Amino acid sequence: MYNAAPSDYNCPICIAIQGIENEDTWIVQDDIFYRDDLVMGFISSKSVLGSEAHPLIVPLEHHENLYNLPQGVGHRIMDLSKKIAIALKEIRNVDGVTITQHNEPAGGQHAFHYHMHVFPRFEDDNFETELWKAKRSTPEERKFHAQALREYFE
Amino acid sequence: MYNAAPSDYNCPICIAIQGIENEDTWIVQDDIFYRDDLVMGFISSKSVLGSEAHPLIVPLEHHENLYNLPQGVGHRIMDLSKKIAIALKEIRNVDGVTITQHNEPAGGQHAFHYHMHVFPRFEDDNFETELWKAKRSTPEERKFHAQALREYFE
Repeated sequence: MYNAAPSDYNCPICIAIQGIENEDTWIVQDDIFYRDDLVMGFISSKSVLGSEAHPLIVPLEHHENLYNLPQGVGHRIMDLSKKIAIALKEIRNVDGVTITQHNEPAGGQHAFHYHMHVFPRFEDDNFETELWKAKRSTPEERKFHAQALREYFE
Repeated sequence: MYNAAPSDYNCPICIAIQGIENEDTWIVQDDIFYRDDLVMGFISSKSVLGSEAHPLIVPLEHHENLYNLPQGVGHRIMDLSKKIAIALKEIRNVDGVTITQHNEPAGGQHAFHYHMHVFPRFEDDNFETELWKAKRSTPEERKFHAQALREYFE
């Protein structure tokens, strides 16, 4: 229902979920900090200046957007978003947390596999403009943050 | 945990949940389109140009933010956000839906009662800049949209 991805879409998030690193996905396995039977948490490979290395939550099964998300998966995503928000308070001492989630290209969606953004926020971080200028980060820039969350969730 | 509201905070969302209209809340009862035992949905009294009359979801109990949200309430909010997203597709023929949810002043939170925004999106709506310039709308501007969602959820 209401899908925008082409029928031959090579999903970069599914590639990472399968444990694969290749040129079709920016995600590396070291980005992943949480996984259970329904969802996965990893550090986004697109970085927002001032809110760097933000977590994403995705369903393990391929569901393109919120319209298609099974109820139990949605519940688990909500649970994990709360846990990650608290983790960011405790680990990174953030001043706030902003959740965003985009559906369809007109809704700001670029990767066509449901993903919820959990942004660390800081006083005077200029998020309002930087949010829309996210740039690709390097695996090295993400590694420390994924490691810290992995230890938190162990 | 991690609360920013003053101890004598007069919550404008709690006032509306109690069925009251007064000068301490911008919400009128006609804004409300959904209510069950845990959550309420109503049209925001702050309007984003191009994404006017967007729905908000709140818990009936006062919980300030995501850090404090009980699990069952979070699940219900997630369920309702999906239903509203689909409703916006069907009723308003939106091109997309964007979810945002803000925690603490540094996270962009202004009303200190958890609330999730469900924004209708349209091609070329200029949301990236308009989002941060939301302006107070009149009850008359909201009435039609609340009524349409109320009928959808009946």
